[in-house]
Order: sequence, then structure tokens, then C-alpha cells
Amino acid sequence: MNKGEMTRQRIIEEAAPIFNQRGFVGCSMQDVMEATGLEKGGIYRHFESKEELAAEAFKFAIGEAFRVRRQGADAIENRLERIKYLVRRFVDVPSPVPGGCPMMNAAIDSDDGNPVLRGLAKEAIADWKKRLSVLVREGIERGEIREGTDPRRISNVVVAALEGALMISRLERNRTAVQDAAVVLEGILDGIAV
Amino acid sequence: MNKGEMTRQRIIEEAAPIFNQRGFVGCSMQDVMEATGLEKGGIYRHFESKEELAAEAFKFAIGEAFRVRRQGADAIENRLERIKYLVRRFVDVPSPVPGGCPMMNAAIDSDDGNPVLRGLAKEAIADWKKRLSVLVREGIERGEIREGTDPRRISNVVVAALEGALMISRLERNRTAVQDAAVVLEGILDGIAV
Repeated sequence: MNKGEMTRQRIIEEAAPIFNQRGFVGCSMQDVMEATGLEKGGIYRHFESKEELAAEAFKFAIGEAFRVRRQGADAIENRLERIKYLVRRFVDVPSPVPGGCPMMNAAIDSDDGNPVLRGLAKEAIADWKKRLSVLVREGIERGEIREGTDPRRISNVVVAALEGALMISRLERNRTAVQDAAVVLEGILDGIAV
Repeated sequence: MNKGEMTRQRIIEEAAPIFNQRGFVGCSMQDVMEATGLEKGGIYRHFESKEELAAEAFKFAIGEAFRVRRQGADAIENRLERIKYLVRRFVDVPSPVPGGCPMMNAAIDSDDGNPVLRGLAKEAIADWKKRLSVLVREGIERGEIREGTDPRRISNVVVAALEGALMISRLERNRTAVQDAAVVLEGILDGIAV
């Protein structure tokens, strides 16, 4: 990275928690200027608009969340065990960028207006569900997951239960809901084992 | 209701979809003035602050969502069947105030600042979970639900799966995720039947 690219990356990383905590409307360029110590012109040299910076900040936040939670997963050969490990990681390892799950934030925040952010949140959820579906399909092929299991339904329920539980846990400020979701999801996953 | 109370109620009902769609920061008093056709002074005659109006708008939106989805539930004596009916209603009957689930919106929107709205969202989720827990406990007493079933875990998972699925459905703009959640929840509920 050259100096310009490094500055751009630093702005993204410093803006990410502000956008993730306050939302697109609630995060002003003034906030980003204060966090980075840069003038407005210094920021707009690297981004065409607030929209572009918000999109990059979201991509960084979601990338970090996936990265830390996937750590160690590929070492687990059995696909059903790998899915269970990913569920457990989601519960045990918080999203590293402050402000909660970037996908949920972007989904709600972008619902009215901001089609770029909405598109990115939609892509992120499609990506997550696809990864889970592939694991289910591979598990069936490898004889680890019962034939006839619906990959789409399993992915939808894993993502829904975890994200919904996260919402409850955010409100209650404790881990009970995500722990409960993990226990029930483990039961569901044990139910599709061969 | 006298004329003042009627105007107050009308402002709440007309502000509710704007707050629910755009969030607290994204809904300006200008928006409320346009929706109601009232001057700023005419609105502030009925509410001390934007915060108070937002709180009343949230209470109205969540009240409507609970009301339409609970319709017909009390006629079902069997508590497990009643829970299954409530799950089905949640999937089939959209929240009547535009902008999606008010609880999810308030939970995310109020996460940074706005403690009043946060408190109301927390109360709403506690209320929903308590109603479900009571049904599980009564079902156990009536011999319809298996002894040893954990009411808290069942409530957490029903609420989490439905809310999380709603988030996916909002992004995907189809009903697949909530339908999938309902099917899996029915399986879980059948699993605790006596």
C-alpha cells in the first residue's frame, strides 16, 4: 500500500465503528473528521461521497465479523460439526467492530433509502446463507447429514435464530438469548445427523 | 376523548409510520408537520419533545402489532396449539404500521443514545417473552406440554427465530425465511408436546 491507500484504509477503519453504532444518518462527516483528525477535504480526497465511505465501512465491519468467527472452522472435516462450531463461534466471539452485528444494523438502517448499503447487507446475508447451504450439501454427499435435509431451510433458521437472539441479547444486555438459541440450534443440527 | 386528546392521538398515529420507517434521527419534526398538516407549535402543544412523540408513536406501533397478531388466540384452549397459532399469525399477518417490526427498529435505532426508546423496546420484548413463558408453564400444568420444558428457552427461541427471519425477509423481500422459521418452530413445538 502506498501512503494514499494507507490513509484511505485508516479512514475506513476509524469510520466503521461510528457508522455501525450510529447508522448512516446518525454518523456525520464531522464525526469522521474528529475520529480521524482529518479535514473534510482530506477525507473527500479518498472517497467520492459519504455513501461511498459508509459502504466501505460496512464491508470492513462485515469482513472482520466473518473473519474472526470463521477462524479454525476449516480444520473441522465433518460438515455438521463444522456448522455446529460456527454456531458456537457466533455466540462466543463478538463482532469486533463496536456497535453490534453490522448486517442487522445495515438491514434496518438502509431499509428506508440508501440502496447501496441495502444491497451490501443483502449480499452479506446471501453469502452467509450460501456458505451454510454448501456445508449442508457437502455433509449430505459425505454421508454426515441426512438425505432430504433442506439446505435453504437449515441456513435460514441458523441465521434467523442467531441474528434474532442477538437482537434480544442487545436489548437485555446479557448472553441468555444467544446461549438459548445455540442450544436449540445444536438440537436441530443433531436431528439431521446420519 | 375531547378535541385536544383526539388531535394528540391523530398526531401519534400519523407520526408512527414515519418514526418506524426512518428511525428517531431520520424522522424530523418537519416530516411530522407535513404528515399532520400542523404547525410546529400545534404539535408541541401536545408533546413536550420529539422524544415524547417518538415514545408514544412506538407504543402505538407495537400495540397495533400485538393486537392484530393476537386476534383469535384466546379461543384456543390448548396452550401448545395457541403458541403454534401465534407463530403462524406472526408469519401470516404483517405488522400494520408501515416500516417493519417496531421492536426490531427501536432495538437497533435506540442502541446508541435514546434510552427512553430503548427502555420501551426492552419492555416490549420482555412482555412478549413473558406471555409465551406463561403459555408454556400453563401448558405443562394442563398436561399439554412435556414436564421439564424450559419456558425461557422456548420463548427466547420463538422470538429470536421470528425476528431474525423477519430481518432476512426484509432484505430478501420475500417470505421464504419467515416461512422456514415457522416450519422449524412448529417442529420444535411438536417436540415438546405430551
